Amino acid sequence: MNFIGADASFGDSRLVLFGAPYDSTTSFRPGARFGPAAMRMESFGIETFSPYQDADLEGVSVHDAGDLELPFGGAEPVLAMIEEKTREILDAGKTPVMLGGEHLVSLGAVRAVASKFPDLHIIHFDAHADLRLDYLGNPLSHACVMRRCHDILGDGRIRQFGIRSGTKEEFAFMTAGHVRTERHSCVTLPDFSLPEGTPVYLTVDMDVLDPSEFPGTGTQEAGGLQFRELLAALLDVFARFNVVAFDNVELAPQIDPTGRSTALACKLLREELIAFSTHNP
Amino acid sequence: MNFIGADASFGDSRLVLFGAPYDSTTSFRPGARFGPAAMRMESFGIETFSPYQDADLEGVSVHDAGDLELPFGGAEPVLAMIEEKTREILDAGKTPVMLGGEHLVSLGAVRAVASKFPDLHIIHFDAHADLRLDYLGNPLSHACVMRRCHDILGDGRIRQFGIRSGTKEEFAFMTAGHVRTERHSCVTLPDFSLPEGTPVYLTVDMDVLDPSEFPGTGTQEAGGLQFRELLAALLDVFARFNVVAFDNVELAPQIDPTGRSTALACKLLREELIAFSTHNP
Amino acid sequence: MNFIGADASFGDSRLVLFGAPYDSTTSFRPGARFGPAAMRMESFGIETFSPYQDADLEGVSVHDAGDLELPFGGAEPVLAMIEEKTREILDAGKTPVMLGGEHLVSLGAVRAVASKFPDLHIIHFDAHADLRLDYLGNPLSHACVMRRCHDILGDGRIRQFGIRSGTKEEFAFMTAGHVRTERHSCVTLPDFSLPEGTPVYLTVDMDVLDPSEFPGTGTQEAGGLQFRELLAALLDVFARFNVVAFDNVELAPQIDPTGRSTALACKLLREELIAFSTHNP
Amino acid sequence: MNFIGADASFGDSRLVLFGAPYDSTTSFRPGARFGPAAMRMESFGIETFSPYQDADLEGVSVHDAGDLELPFGGAEPVLAMIEEKTREILDAGKTPVMLGGEHLVSLGAVRAVASKFPDLHIIHFDAHADLRLDYLGNPLSHACVMRRCHDILGDGRIRQFGIRSGTKEEFAFMTAGHVRTERHSCVTLPDFSLPEGTPVYLTVDMDVLDPSEFPGTGTQEAGGLQFRELLAALLDVFARFNVVAFDNVELAPQIDPTGRSTALACKLLREELIAFSTHNP
Amino acid sequence: MNFIGADASFGDSRLVLFGAPYDSTTSFRPGARFGPAAMRMESFGIETFSPYQDADLEGVSVHDAGDLELPFGGAEPVLAMIEEKTREILDAGKTPVMLGGEHLVSLGAVRAVASKFPDLHIIHFDAHADLRLDYLGNPLSHACVMRRCHDILGDGRIRQFGIRSGTKEEFAFMTAGHVRTERHSCVTLPDFSLPEGTPVYLTVDMDVLDPSEFPGTGTQEAGGLQFRELLAALLDVFARFNVVAFDNVELAPQIDPTGRSTALACKLLREELIAFSTHNP
Amino acid sequence: MNFIGADASFGDSRLVLFGAPYDSTTSFRPGARFGPAAMRMESFGIETFSPYQDADLEGVSVHDAGDLELPFGGAEPVLAMIEEKTREILDAGKTPVMLGGEHLVSLGAVRAVASKFPDLHIIHFDAHADLRLDYLGNPLSHACVMRRCHDILGDGRIRQFGIRSGTKEEFAFMTAGHVRTERHSCVTLPDFSLPEGTPVYLTVDMDVLDPSEFPGTGTQEAGGLQFRELLAALLDVFARFNVVAFDNVELAPQIDPTGRSTALACKLLREELIAFSTHNP
Repeated sequence: MNFIGADASFGDSRLVLFGAPYDSTTSFRPGARFGPAAMRMESFGIETFSPYQDADLEGVSVHDAGDLELPFGGAEPVLAMIEEKTREILDAGKTPVMLGGEHLVSLGAVRAVASKFPDLHIIHFDAHADLRLDYLGNPLSHACVMRRCHDILGDGRIRQFGIRSGTKEEFAFMTAGHVRTERHSCVTLPDFSLPEGTPVYLTVDMDVLDPSEFPGTGTQEAGGLQFRELLAALLDVFARFNVVAFDNVELAPQIDPTGRSTALACKLLREELIAFSTHNP
Repeated sequence: MNFIGADASFGDSRLVLFGAPYDSTTSFRPGARFGPAAMRMESFGIETFSPYQDADLEGVSVHDAGDLELPFGGAEPVLAMIEEKTREILDAGKTPVMLGGEHLVSLGAVRAVASKFPDLHIIHFDAHADLRLDYLGNPLSHACVMRRCHDILGDGRIRQFGIRSGTKEEFAFMTAGHVRTERHSCVTLPDFSLPEGTPVYLTVDMDVLDPSEFPGTGTQEAGGLQFRELLAALLDVFARFNVVAFDNVELAPQIDPTGRSTALACKLLREELIAFSTHNP
Repeated sequence: MNFIGADASFGDSRLVLFGAPYDSTTSFRPGARFGPAAMRMESFGIETFSPYQDADLEGVSVHDAGDLELPFGGAEPVLAMIEEKTREILDAGKTPVMLGGEHLVSLGAVRAVASKFPDLHIIHFDAHADLRLDYLGNPLSHACVMRRCHDILGDGRIRQFGIRSGTKEEFAFMTAGHVRTERHSCVTLPDFSLPEGTPVYLTVDMDVLDPSEFPGTGTQEAGGLQFRELLAALLDVFARFNVVAFDNVELAPQIDPTGRSTALACKLLREELIAFSTHNP
Repeated sequence: MNFIGADASFGDSRLVLFGAPYDSTTSFRPGARFGPAAMRMESFGIETFSPYQDADLEGVSVHDAGDLELPFGGAEPVLAMIEEKTREILDAGKTPVMLGGEHLVSLGAVRAVASKFPDLHIIHFDAHADLRLDYLGNPLSHACVMRRCHDILGDGRIRQFGIRSGTKEEFAFMTAGHVRTERHSCVTLPDFSLPEGTPVYLTVDMDVLDPSEFPGTGTQEAGGLQFRELLAALLDVFARFNVVAFDNVELAPQIDPTGRSTALACKLLREELIAFSTHNP
Repeated sequence: MNFIGADASFGDSRLVLFGAPYDSTTSFRPGARFGPAAMRMESFGIETFSPYQDADLEGVSVHDAGDLELPFGGAEPVLAMIEEKTREILDAGKTPVMLGGEHLVSLGAVRAVASKFPDLHIIHFDAHADLRLDYLGNPLSHACVMRRCHDILGDGRIRQFGIRSGTKEEFAFMTAGHVRTERHSCVTLPDFSLPEGTPVYLTVDMDVLDPSEFPGTGTQEAGGLQFRELLAALLDVFARFNVVAFDNVELAPQIDPTGRSTALACKLLREELIAFSTHNP
Repeated sequence: MNFIGADASFGDSRLVLFGAPYDSTTSFRPGARFGPAAMRMESFGIETFSPYQDADLEGVSVHDAGDLELPFGGAEPVLAMIEEKTREILDAGKTPVMLGGEHLVSLGAVRAVASKFPDLHIIHFDAHADLRLDYLGNPLSHACVMRRCHDILGDGRIRQFGIRSGTKEEFAFMTAGHVRTERHSCVTLPDFSLPEGTPVYLTVDMDVLDPSEFPGTGTQEAGGLQFRELLAALLDVFARFNVVAFDNVELAPQIDPTGRSTALACKLLREELIAFSTHNP
């Protein structure tokens, strides 16, 4: 079963979707492993047409490569498989779109993308800073993923929005200027720009949304973004930046028995796929 | 068990409530059949007094006629029963208030009302356009109800608010001017008017609300109205238009285990009953 | 996504699975439409090996034809599509295995099978008699499906087990000898036989199981069979009768938040597929 | 809304149902207050015909007097209202059937019944002994209800079945012979008898059932009775004893999201009403 | 298990947390008794650092005294135990912080605080007025708690925010000037002041929040405050008023299966503890 | 918060409880990490007295050492911490009782116990064989735990009961005699014995129970043991074998919204603690 409208063959596609159903390092409530499968199944409850962009997913050539078959437990083999898959898509001249899984999966993709685009920047939407050095001694935890990306990219390459939770040390790391962070919201996005053509990895931890709109995630943080705000921000990102790969992570569908988190995630992905296609014709 | 405060006899009543517990054509998640019963039961958790209108439901003469006993399966006999019930209420000089059930039930009521008021207009709050010609070959589907109403009323008689989902064809139908639609919100309502006395059927698919406030519905669409917005809009409708019948549909209570969708639906109905009574003393 | 192990092509297969996701006539709690999709998804949580039969589903050639795309609402077009699909499978010399959906879908399949095998008998496991003449005036309701089959097959062709709910009229119909029924259990199955080679349609309404083991169904009836009893009975049916088609119906997965009903349904189907294969090598 | 089939007027009735929706002293998980309303609503999902007794509830004259409007908090006013209602029914020559609510409500009914029938005995099905002197200092707790009944009736008048939880002191109280108790099951019921005509109050705390069949109760105790066992036992009680009043308590419907506990409770009540009627024509 | 960061001994502490797990007078859906335990357990899912105040709970000396062991049933003994506990904390020169439980528990604390601070004022956030004279004859109900506080404090001492539900009589009581109430929101808080040093009891019924953000409460009222609004308001209260005791009540965690209500309650308490500490160094 | 009755200090204790809240290798539905905390909290809903053994947990000296603080992700550091904790308890001359967590945690404990008792045998109750060589390449998966124990202990040391799921290879491994397995039930336990004094590690994967009684586990397998059967078997094990350490694993409490799985797990542990104490006075 493909995500709705993602009917292109690999060869014909411009965008390649794949799932990374891993959540072994989740520290609070696991379940993000079920995100990609739930999105595929529930995607048939939404329309392919976007009344926000007056465009239809039917016109976008997306291939759904299914889910990676990832072992549970330690992260290193998992990250290697994700890195390899991402590289394979990039090498074919296509754009990878990864569905998590917990946020740590982004590290695998970023390794491949940064290797191809050494001047890579990251635009990061999240409720959590994810900048810990380690979590209970484990440096490969979802709570450390942006710190590991910083290890690769260095200072000044990561721009965060919506952050409203972290340790004293993580906030000190921001304040020291290693990354640039807007707390609680994304109103400063319009003022943020990069030199034209700078390659950008866009990573959206969907818990950046307010839990009232997106309860289906492991660690909910009150005081988040509204769907309309996030959608507007993402459309802006695709319009003004050179997004070379992107991911949506941390949907844990079974935490939300009403199913609306999965429905929202499907709609968000539809809008991103259409927006990418509009700006990368 | 009556809806709270709906204690008048049929003879003494000004408004007549009835339930239409049908959901057989629901294409995604059924359950709207349980809406009317849930509302009656949970209505005892709200007060009869409205701090929004400084008025009390106790002073409004409402009769609760209970639920129609509708067969499940094909829609035609169901629509006929609804049409007959609506006509009976209208013929007694009273105002019908229908509780769905899925949105298709509105068609039965509109048939009766349009037959009595040939210049009928519809004000329609919904997340979905409901303007399909047919759904998998079935013209009597909840996804087609406004198109069927258009078949009866013709161009220019349907005014939609809050619409944020539909096919390319449905949006083209709007753009072609057959119906007038505001997408995503209802901020243009204050600018909408009709010649004084024009009879209006008001239909509220409660999924027009944001799923964060009203998750208890079959097809949730992110990016919806807030309760406060919808309430203000409905009070405006009752104040400025000649509402001759109205309905609230698509509460599927068991989809929301917290119960707040049903509580909200009860409160909304209380406000509508009071508002109608205030403007139709 | 196929049911686990159902990897054969149509051409190579001996058994052909298909889903009939329809539940529009369900009189109490709908949701059986989600049964087939849930079974496919959750089937990856079970093993392909059966410790009951010491055999593996991997050795059985099953094709999963996916779900029929059925319109919701009136039953007649739905039954026609099911009948056609069943006939197509039979005409290819393969054995149809249908996953409901509500029990009414069995009628479509029985129409096709009885047309090919005029001396068809039905073995029927269910909590409910399903022998009503009509339900609220509708003769095509899930509560009438065995009566409609009786219309086709006539007296003495339907053998029921586990029945523990019905109207006075339905039980009178049994007592009058039109069908043969064991109430509450299936202990008389070993004593039941048919002339060798008699074609049998096996229909299993999984609510025949006790709700403690199978709560995920619309109308739960206490006092039912245990999984072990039902499994033993079904293995006996496949061993001693000429099953030419079979179905499992009335799993409504979302009614059971623990997921064990779907897991049980997957396991039951695995056992049936293996048993059929063993006895029809 | 009446319980299904309970359509007689008070005057014409032989049995009078009423609800006692109180649960303020529940020590673990409250919610039994919602039991009677849930039973009325869900009773329309069962049939009126009993295949166990080959008889129909339609032939039994039951009046449903609705729920008492009980204040939450301290128990004494609540017990007084229950006692008065029970007395009123007895004084009219009818048989009271109370639906709890928590088990403490039985005390109010027993007070009225014991006052009319001084030689009253109690037959008690329960997982819990309910024989505490007090619970955290409160003598009017659901954990003390049988001890309070013992205060009224004295030694040798209470016969318990299915008990599998209690304090050391409660079990010592049994062992000392104040009450007669069968632990874990009810296999000794056939050997228990009373002088003919002895008036019996039958109280069924439905948590006597195994939690696999009846999870919808506040304090679940593994290792309980099966529905079939309890049903057989209750039919035996009605056949051999002079039941002058009875109750079913401790259904907390929202604890069981599958709804099967409520369905079972409805079926059990149907069987009791029919059995009473058969033996008290 | 303590609330996160509440590791101080009683002797070393400045603030003393205790739980009052009572909900026997809850008129609609009980369960607030489980609030304090759920908060302690889930508090380990939040960080101790506040990005709102740039401060850490680690620096605040809080003792968690655990839960009072309260009997269920009548309220008077419960209120006495709460009063005594509150007095004990005040007498030790520390500030009591109570976690409900239903709102009635505030009465016990207010009795003790008003006895020590005779010029006490109350700042009250709530969806419900809680000003009834009695509820079904019971003056000690959660629906009457502010009226009982008014009995103690008299006119002009209670300031309410966010109120959006009550009877005609309760709103008349406000209008008559006995208490001062802002309906629906708290925008007038900045204009409200008291003579410097006036002792204030702050009571937060968390159902003042919109049910979309805080569904885990017994009686949800649409149209409430957002978390950000309430947080800003509470920070303002701690900054400008002399808060001598405070409570957060009416979290009923099991009503919200997503768990976000408990997470929000933990975060709110963290912010209050830090804010108190900042302004009472 | 201790498990009920586990109030002894480490020094005074005979048995030492600890939790191992790890579930990172769970292949299907995670959540066993929440098992120990849920058991502690819910244990206050059961009594300390056992009507099965006529004895009270109050007389048993148990220390509750709380939960290990385990990192999520790769298993090796986790197993090392469990091994160390187990060794520490054994070295103090006390008996370790571990609460999982997923079944892999047993490997850590078995390492320590086998090192102290080289002739160790394992008695293993489970629905799943857990004898895979590896799972998707990972040898440290919960699906491999008994195979890893076999690596340590060798042939003929592991006795399994209740097994009803596994791969063809796993069942071949049993048949080849490496371990001795009873499928589906535990009726052969009375015939199983070991030389007197042989040290036994008892490991109970609670999914050996039927999912009707114990749905709260990640991979439910129909056709399991009843509570009464398992309890009788465990009492027999403690009576006839020299149990030197034991564990109960795979309770995933949030999968069972009725809470009865956790209640059952508490009761089972109570019985085990009392039984151990009776036979090791």
